Amino acid sequence: MPFVNIRITREGATKEQKERLIQGVTDLLADVLGKNPKTTFVIIDEVDTDNWGIAGESVTELRKK
Amino acid sequence: MPFVNIRITREGATKEQKERLIQGVTDLLADVLGKNPKTTFVIIDEVDTDNWGIAGESVTELRKK
Amino acid sequence: MPFVNIRITREGATKEQKERLIQGVTDLLADVLGKNPKTTFVIIDEVDTDNWGIAGESVTELRKK
Amino acid sequence: MPFVNIRITREGATKEQKERLIQGVTDLLADVLGKNPKTTFVIIDEVDTDNWGIAGESVTELRKK
Amino acid sequence: MPFVNIRITREGATKEQKERLIQGVTDLLADVLGKNPKTTFVIIDEVDTDNWGIAGESVTELRKK
Amino acid sequence: MPFVNIRITREGATKEQKERLIQGVTDLLADVLGKNPKTTFVIIDEVDTDNWGIAGESVTELRKK
Repeated sequence: MPFVNIRITREGATKEQKERLIQGVTDLLADVLGKNPKTTFVIIDEVDTDNWGIAGESVTELRKK
Repeated sequence: MPFVNIRITREGATKEQKERLIQGVTDLLADVLGKNPKTTFVIIDEVDTDNWGIAGESVTELRKK
Repeated sequence: MPFVNIRITREGATKEQKERLIQGVTDLLADVLGKNPKTTFVIIDEVDTDNWGIAGESVTELRKK
Repeated sequence: MPFVNIRITREGATKEQKERLIQGVTDLLADVLGKNPKTTFVIIDEVDTDNWGIAGESVTELRKK
Repeated sequence: MPFVNIRITREGATKEQKERLIQGVTDLLADVLGKNPKTTFVIIDEVDTDNWGIAGESVTELRKK
Repeated sequence: MPFVNIRITREGATKEQKERLIQGVTDLLADVLGKNPKTTFVIIDEVDTDNWGIAGESVTELRKK
């Protein structure tokens, strides 16, 4: 019964891409650890680039460089 | 000083229902563990059904079945 | 299919108390939002008092006062 | 390679304030633990006041008092 | 720069299995969203079965049935 | 009433360093956003290097290079 939280910047991931992430992670946990897909949860959080920092700056600022 | 994070799909929980969740969890921690309500935090995250997967599919797709 | 994460300090919660937290939160989500207990996940994290801060100090220090 | 998640109520934090949080936390981890800023991630989550509870009530209700 | 948190019960996942989870999730994010592996973080949390509940019971109890 | 979760690898952070992180983050939130230290929570999670991945490998492996 794994729980997976994927956090990405909000930059236009499509519904189809999110379905692929959900399917891919669920398959991975079944393959590697034998986890039951029926009780595998995946939550994708999309985070505004103003709210995600790396190297001391927001991604909004980093994208300008 | 417990911290509780409740994650649900964004499907119309009302403000009154969210108040009941906050009150209920806070009472539970006081009853079971004697935790002080004044320093009990509860955060409710509502997640789009496209972004929540179970059994390898998004809840959006599961709801169609 | 809610997901609940309860974080408490590691100060001797018993297995029986943890069962009561799991049951209580699951019931609450069924009562308030009609959520199916079968797909309600609860994870309890117990955090060392050195690693939990409030008011600018660790709980270890606060407990000494 | 620290990961920091800051959760605050959504009450008008500006982009400039969020930049200061990102910079400040990144500097703190470099100063105290020698962590490399290049691989320090900071994510700020802004939470609606209806969805944040303390002392058994939402912040929305607490703000009215 | 995705961040992925995988939570599983603590039931003997090996170092090699954890390496495969880390590699697999990192590849998935590169394949589906073009994310740079160099700034993809994965954290695996292993949770005691007493501390993970589903359907109102701990996994410890469910495993006995 | 901010909540901050700092995740670092478990590589010997001392109690004194953790106190400095707690104090530093609490001060930062007071300085930048005027948040009340009394209701600022900080939780530090120390993660085994086998369980933290970056660039598709665990930190355990990266440290060997």
